[in-house]
Amino acid sequence: MSKRIVCFGEIMLRLSPPGCLRFEQAHSLDVVYGGGEANVAVSLSNYGLDACFVTRVPANPIGQGAINEMRRYGVDTRFMVRGGERLGVYFLEKGASQRPSKVVYDRKFSAISQVQKGDFDWQAIFELAHWFHFTGITPALGDTVAEVVIEACEAARAAGLTISCDLNYRKNLWSSENAGKVMAALMPYVDLCIANEEDAEKVFAIKATGSDIRSGVLSHEGYKSVARQLTDRFPFKAVAITLRGSISASDNNWSAMLYKNGNYHFSRTYPIHIVDRVGGGDSFAGGLIYAFLNGLGDEEALEFAVAASCLKHSIEGDKNHVTVDEVKALMAGDASGRVVR
Amino acid sequence: MSKRIVCFGEIMLRLSPPGCLRFEQAHSLDVVYGGGEANVAVSLSNYGLDACFVTRVPANPIGQGAINEMRRYGVDTRFMVRGGERLGVYFLEKGASQRPSKVVYDRKFSAISQVQKGDFDWQAIFELAHWFHFTGITPALGDTVAEVVIEACEAARAAGLTISCDLNYRKNLWSSENAGKVMAALMPYVDLCIANEEDAEKVFAIKATGSDIRSGVLSHEGYKSVARQLTDRFPFKAVAITLRGSISASDNNWSAMLYKNGNYHFSRTYPIHIVDRVGGGDSFAGGLIYAFLNGLGDEEALEFAVAASCLKHSIEGDKNHVTVDEVKALMAGDASGRVVR
Amino acid sequence: MSKRIVCFGEIMLRLSPPGCLRFEQAHSLDVVYGGGEANVAVSLSNYGLDACFVTRVPANPIGQGAINEMRRYGVDTRFMVRGGERLGVYFLEKGASQRPSKVVYDRKFSAISQVQKGDFDWQAIFELAHWFHFTGITPALGDTVAEVVIEACEAARAAGLTISCDLNYRKNLWSSENAGKVMAALMPYVDLCIANEEDAEKVFAIKATGSDIRSGVLSHEGYKSVARQLTDRFPFKAVAITLRGSISASDNNWSAMLYKNGNYHFSRTYPIHIVDRVGGGDSFAGGLIYAFLNGLGDEEALEFAVAASCLKHSIEGDKNHVTVDEVKALMAGDASGRVVR
Amino acid sequence: MSKRIVCFGEIMLRLSPPGCLRFEQAHSLDVVYGGGEANVAVSLSNYGLDACFVTRVPANPIGQGAINEMRRYGVDTRFMVRGGERLGVYFLEKGASQRPSKVVYDRKFSAISQVQKGDFDWQAIFELAHWFHFTGITPALGDTVAEVVIEACEAARAAGLTISCDLNYRKNLWSSENAGKVMAALMPYVDLCIANEEDAEKVFAIKATGSDIRSGVLSHEGYKSVARQLTDRFPFKAVAITLRGSISASDNNWSAMLYKNGNYHFSRTYPIHIVDRVGGGDSFAGGLIYAFLNGLGDEEALEFAVAASCLKHSIEGDKNHVTVDEVKALMAGDASGRVVR
Amino acid sequence: MSKRIVCFGEIMLRLSPPGCLRFEQAHSLDVVYGGGEANVAVSLSNYGLDACFVTRVPANPIGQGAINEMRRYGVDTRFMVRGGERLGVYFLEKGASQRPSKVVYDRKFSAISQVQKGDFDWQAIFELAHWFHFTGITPALGDTVAEVVIEACEAARAAGLTISCDLNYRKNLWSSENAGKVMAALMPYVDLCIANEEDAEKVFAIKATGSDIRSGVLSHEGYKSVARQLTDRFPFKAVAITLRGSISASDNNWSAMLYKNGNYHFSRTYPIHIVDRVGGGDSFAGGLIYAFLNGLGDEEALEFAVAASCLKHSIEGDKNHVTVDEVKALMAGDASGRVVR
Amino acid sequence: MSKRIVCFGEIMLRLSPPGCLRFEQAHSLDVVYGGGEANVAVSLSNYGLDACFVTRVPANPIGQGAINEMRRYGVDTRFMVRGGERLGVYFLEKGASQRPSKVVYDRKFSAISQVQKGDFDWQAIFELAHWFHFTGITPALGDTVAEVVIEACEAARAAGLTISCDLNYRKNLWSSENAGKVMAALMPYVDLCIANEEDAEKVFAIKATGSDIRSGVLSHEGYKSVARQLTDRFPFKAVAITLRGSISASDNNWSAMLYKNGNYHFSRTYPIHIVDRVGGGDSFAGGLIYAFLNGLGDEEALEFAVAASCLKHSIEGDKNHVTVDEVKALMAGDASGRVVR
Repeated sequence: MSKRIVCFGEIMLRLSPPGCLRFEQAHSLDVVYGGGEANVAVSLSNYGLDACFVTRVPANPIGQGAINEMRRYGVDTRFMVRGGERLGVYFLEKGASQRPSKVVYDRKFSAISQVQKGDFDWQAIFELAHWFHFTGITPALGDTVAEVVIEACEAARAAGLTISCDLNYRKNLWSSENAGKVMAALMPYVDLCIANEEDAEKVFAIKATGSDIRSGVLSHEGYKSVARQLTDRFPFKAVAITLRGSISASDNNWSAMLYKNGNYHFSRTYPIHIVDRVGGGDSFAGGLIYAFLNGLGDEEALEFAVAASCLKHSIEGDKNHVTVDEVKALMAGDASGRVVR
Repeated sequence: MSKRIVCFGEIMLRLSPPGCLRFEQAHSLDVVYGGGEANVAVSLSNYGLDACFVTRVPANPIGQGAINEMRRYGVDTRFMVRGGERLGVYFLEKGASQRPSKVVYDRKFSAISQVQKGDFDWQAIFELAHWFHFTGITPALGDTVAEVVIEACEAARAAGLTISCDLNYRKNLWSSENAGKVMAALMPYVDLCIANEEDAEKVFAIKATGSDIRSGVLSHEGYKSVARQLTDRFPFKAVAITLRGSISASDNNWSAMLYKNGNYHFSRTYPIHIVDRVGGGDSFAGGLIYAFLNGLGDEEALEFAVAASCLKHSIEGDKNHVTVDEVKALMAGDASGRVVR
Repeated sequence: MSKRIVCFGEIMLRLSPPGCLRFEQAHSLDVVYGGGEANVAVSLSNYGLDACFVTRVPANPIGQGAINEMRRYGVDTRFMVRGGERLGVYFLEKGASQRPSKVVYDRKFSAISQVQKGDFDWQAIFELAHWFHFTGITPALGDTVAEVVIEACEAARAAGLTISCDLNYRKNLWSSENAGKVMAALMPYVDLCIANEEDAEKVFAIKATGSDIRSGVLSHEGYKSVARQLTDRFPFKAVAITLRGSISASDNNWSAMLYKNGNYHFSRTYPIHIVDRVGGGDSFAGGLIYAFLNGLGDEEALEFAVAASCLKHSIEGDKNHVTVDEVKALMAGDASGRVVR
Repeated sequence: MSKRIVCFGEIMLRLSPPGCLRFEQAHSLDVVYGGGEANVAVSLSNYGLDACFVTRVPANPIGQGAINEMRRYGVDTRFMVRGGERLGVYFLEKGASQRPSKVVYDRKFSAISQVQKGDFDWQAIFELAHWFHFTGITPALGDTVAEVVIEACEAARAAGLTISCDLNYRKNLWSSENAGKVMAALMPYVDLCIANEEDAEKVFAIKATGSDIRSGVLSHEGYKSVARQLTDRFPFKAVAITLRGSISASDNNWSAMLYKNGNYHFSRTYPIHIVDRVGGGDSFAGGLIYAFLNGLGDEEALEFAVAASCLKHSIEGDKNHVTVDEVKALMAGDASGRVVR
Repeated sequence: MSKRIVCFGEIMLRLSPPGCLRFEQAHSLDVVYGGGEANVAVSLSNYGLDACFVTRVPANPIGQGAINEMRRYGVDTRFMVRGGERLGVYFLEKGASQRPSKVVYDRKFSAISQVQKGDFDWQAIFELAHWFHFTGITPALGDTVAEVVIEACEAARAAGLTISCDLNYRKNLWSSENAGKVMAALMPYVDLCIANEEDAEKVFAIKATGSDIRSGVLSHEGYKSVARQLTDRFPFKAVAITLRGSISASDNNWSAMLYKNGNYHFSRTYPIHIVDRVGGGDSFAGGLIYAFLNGLGDEEALEFAVAASCLKHSIEGDKNHVTVDEVKALMAGDASGRVVR
Repeated sequence: MSKRIVCFGEIMLRLSPPGCLRFEQAHSLDVVYGGGEANVAVSLSNYGLDACFVTRVPANPIGQGAINEMRRYGVDTRFMVRGGERLGVYFLEKGASQRPSKVVYDRKFSAISQVQKGDFDWQAIFELAHWFHFTGITPALGDTVAEVVIEACEAARAAGLTISCDLNYRKNLWSSENAGKVMAALMPYVDLCIANEEDAEKVFAIKATGSDIRSGVLSHEGYKSVARQLTDRFPFKAVAITLRGSISASDNNWSAMLYKNGNYHFSRTYPIHIVDRVGGGDSFAGGLIYAFLNGLGDEEALEFAVAASCLKHSIEGDKNHVTVDEVKALMAGDASGRVVR
């Protein structure tokens, strides 16, 4: 029987103009539902695992849409609670060439942002589960939500689960100061810490020396230093950092680093033509969790996660619709894009 | 030079599934911006008048979209204020046959709902204007908004404008009790009161005797009684009531009554195949204001407003995209729908 | 081998907003190519006949589009000449309920409107042909085009073809006076004259007494009188008149009359929910020509043409995409619209 | 805990031109997955029951699409088997007015049509279940499939389930002779027999006297006679017959009859503007099963099923996306289609 | 109060196949309205200036569409005159890789091409204005239009406006000989002359030595020589030349040169993935006019114009929908396309 | 009069998700009809030749769609036979970046796969023809189809036609062993053998030494060796091999080799941004056949074929919609993608 993972966080209605139209040119908006932890759950379900997503959505057709989308991809939605006033919305305008993608959030007052301790039956949720995943977005939704995350972490630890957290700093949701304080309280529960090139600095003021994000120059030494500082400060078993070399809104170089058991692993780098980069980091987390749960070695696990998230960039929407076989084909070196008949 | 009308209220982002798909079947949503008073402003601009719409929208691309849509149809947007957190959203699922249309509101915390006295320079806004129009939706958005409406009414009266109000009761926004109290305070400013078959009862507990809305049986005597009771209670110069005979979501009979100077006028009744009935009442208000501003007689004014709003039901979106000539052609009796080459 | 029919006239690029959007709401336009005689040619090809369409289109991709569309439906396009500056365009806004459909023509200076005598090799075109069809639109395109029509009629008569003409008066193209003069010169060549309820009056000042088009009241006696007057004046072997009872832009009653050999035949009347009424008359002409060429009796020929054109009203675009079997099924009385599996 | 129902049959990829385009006009095809029993399962899941759908789909993305669609609507897909060569396809062209809808089947050699006895673990499938539903389409798919249906019926009876069957005769799949023989062997297992106005005659040569389907004239007495003959011949506990009065492809009158415990119940008749009539009968079956499982009285159960299937006709696709509350609102008499805000 | 700019020229209906379909594959056409000077006006309005666009459009819905589009983006349309027969049309097929984009013009006999001296009240139009802009396309529309341009230039000079002209040679509209003669008469009014790499040669036979356009090799020295020759011949205060290095229809290198006060400035070069390159030159002109009107230094003005037009290439349609902040962010060096949240 | 070419093979309904959506994300599928030999026929018709396509399609609207599409592009469809059960279908998911395109075939039991000797009147088909073309896909459809291909080859040889064959190995249709045996029997009829970099090995076990397809490294020497081995074994007059350097699903390098009269010609290499690579090889074959039929020299013929197929990669669908002039413009060196006005 496949292993069970629980993800907790917000799922939003994503509305984006077709193609690469700007907001002011759009007369219809494409609909997808997504969010950091929801995206991870879908990745894991696509890999054949028993992924469960926990959140709160309003008892209206928009909330039902979020449930349906998760069900569609095989995610266990039994613990999605109905209530609250609205589903968070985010508007996404896809960039191209030198024009960056743009996100307009309209997520305040969402159903999940109003939850409180006791709203979820964590004991039931974690029954038979092996892993718990959340991101830094969830505690940022509000003070009571942060309390619920702690509650969940305690229950997960009590149930013997591995816990992963993607730092995922969002400046629209909270200040670095606030984030640092709240996240520091959560990190002791975390086994696997995932971050991108900015998170560690924004949340914990840990700097990646020798790396200028906007210039696209990424220093391996800098990332090593960040990983080391993170493990010095918190009892992580592993730290993974995604390395995005942004050439333009259309082209990125994508790779990652894993620091585990004192060893630094740097993955292969993929030059990517971007179709949709939202959810790239989530697909990395999903790949890594799958790999660790299935006993892949550290190096292989990292390559699996990077290949999986490389493929995500070629897929519309927030979620990574790929199978284990497809990821493995890319890992095996076939990046030529030849037609599979 | 064309006459100037000022409309004050909320404009929302309307999102609706294409065709008559249900919410859960939609993978894209059609975008329109609309709201009771905004729709009236567009009607009036389409008729060649100098229509000005006043509201508050967030300083983001979604708010800009609302401004652009109003500009597109020639409405003066100089007094649309930028600020606040979000633009109100409403989701519309169009019904068909026995399946009713469905609206899911997500309008809480909108930019306009947070305005306060002093936020608008009514003296400047009403300069050179002849008419001020608002609906019962606006004061329902919040206590401070209701205060702003009173402020506007006082300024409009001081500037010598005619004032019209469409009662437009919305049960999701406030209770009948609350509505009755607030609206009663506003009615003394109003010259022209517009209502549909339910409003008078819901807001002022004035009942249309002899009329069962759901059965589609409409009694003329009942409506006369409502109009009389309204004018007994408030100093209206005229009362107009739209009469919707709902046969199904696809077919309605549409007519209206005007009570003015002690006379009751009942319009012709149009059997309508519905394309989009949202904004039907607003288009009636727009027609009536145009007609009165252009000196049409009472009977003719009523027929203009009913013909105008009959045409609205054949048009997608909230707004009535018709010209004076098109309305007059229908008034003149040509409802045959022959091709105009 | 199937019989050969030649149709001569204009084919235009038709651009229409999706669904029943108004022009000002459209951000894309649906593309179809059509025109009175082109539509007849497609009908006939769909019935398995060897239909040939003759016109002139510009040597650019827009002209090529017109050729491709005709080829797609099996029409012989070998005699479509390339040249001239532009393809005529017409913009079509579909009406609904009380809102009429609207056509904006942009057909001036089109390639076909510039043709002159000698531009077409009528002898080659009419080789092996049995029938020649044109409409009153073609000579209206310009004086030299009218001369070409006469040239074609002479060649057709010389080759022993049956000639049909649909009067099809277009007030945007010429005045009644001019139309009357030019058409009168063409009528002596015509064997079968087709008209709608307005044409005879507009072109030849022959009035259908007892019939008010806009009121939808159609008098059989009036139509008989029109047919009789037409045959009194011109040597037609038969006159067919379509009878459109316009209830609204969405609903029409549709039938027709045939006057031949001194007998009046009135067809069954179909109550139609309209999908697209453009080309309704053309599909009637196509049905009638097919029926006469295949030896159907007068009554049956009329019913075939009316059933064929009834079906056209349920089909998007200018052209009638139905088979002989489908027409016959409707003629046989099955108008119930049951699913054909 | 909600009751469990098992449905067994084929699910196909349905491809239909947008709007009411004809096949030859379509440049894209809308995608839905559906089939008689799959549609019933979705209805039941929408009503909050634990619906399980059993079938076989190929192990490719098209088969996965079918699984995903069922999951999306909450149907238990654990017993959908992967294997075989292809998913059945059907092409649907929607009719309008006098033009009938048209179905082109391409379902031969489908994965489900190749199953054999032993391919499904019926004991596991029926665990905790209360009801088993199939239609006459399934045994028509092939001799070995018919054997599997018998196998399932035996297991269902052994497990004490109620069994329902919708006769659903399909002339493209088998002859009346063959159908009669195979279905006669299945009927002894069936508690609730559902049929439309043609099935009884086509399968069992039982005629509805006094009713001409194409004329739209439906005789109550004729249907009573059919129900009586069916119960005379087979040990049904109840017989339900849907009554479709086809006025055109756009308008139908819809009602039904229930014969149970010696009583005949005729439902209210709904005049329907059709959006999509495919799956109308399935939605009736779904409504009836729900009603019986939830203990509604016979009359109320019939009205629930008819109201549910009335609403289906206003919904795109094969499946009935309505809730119990929506059905009950219509049953309660509100067919006016007023906007639900 | 923001500065006022007047642009005079043609606005056309642009029709283009979706995505990169070829004309013959398109069944719908995307609608945009645009033209050299209209595009500049929209750029300037987007930057917050008071842009006014002057032209003549037909009094039909297609002409109204052009007005609405300009209004939508805040352009002052009060001086757009209604009249004439048709709006010019151009068909645009977008290229990709080695396949070039293709434009089919259908602009003859357009409303603006028929204007004559006296049709516009230039004195009223230029009231309170600071700048007048036109392109070489406008005088190419016809002899009388050229006269109107001279009339406008004289009025603009009299009113003390700065005048800019984009040479914009169109070989379909006139010969080099004719262009040279007419443009030479206009140049004495011009303060700022804008050109691309071909214009100077085509219009004034001034050659950019050392530059082979098709090879993509661009010589700085050649451009300097062109600018010098232009200023030698005409009394320009500044000359700006855009430098397009066409690698393929999908990839271009984009930069520009400014020659002013005897100094040559060459901008940064942007490697661009092209979304839509139509209007690229216009967006450069718009950027430059904004920059000069807002007092930016020459170097900064050039970089602003190049960054603005770089962004245009990533935007669908003719018009540059960017804000000053977005241009400045790119100028500041952030071309990495990171998501803006 | 233009030369006549006959192509024989399968035409399928191609269904692909819009843009680069994955199968599971698609709610509509774009429709194209195509197949190896059909694509060649369309290329040749676009070049002005008299191309005839021979196949068998079912007598239903899907089969008619295939006929219509071929007619649309001017292909002679008189010898397309109607019969059989179904049209083959293939589902195409377009890849991007590192994600490969994916084809799901559903072509079994297609009408063409059931043909037998005697089903086609080859003598009539080849009348006045100059060339016969088929691919390795056709004999792979079934044993009896292979016999029909032999029958066709014999008739073609008897009629003095040149015969070309594109090896086009499809592993889903047959094994290498079977392919080798059947194709070996057909090769003696073939004058021009076309292959891609894999075919020779898969069909005839002839290896291109020194070339690793997936690495994108292509060795000229290896291809020479393959061509030599092929001509050693079979009496080909010429061998052409396409060389695809797959960098990713979005970028390919494209060139080809021609071996004729003992000389090896290697073409220019085009770096391509891929829009749709399906049919790339077919467009090469079409270009080569055109070139040889029109007497181009070997080098020029090869460059024509490579330029033609380079352009195909920028065009949606299976078929190459380009003219001779467009190919020649690219051959002449203009790959810069400048707008053609």
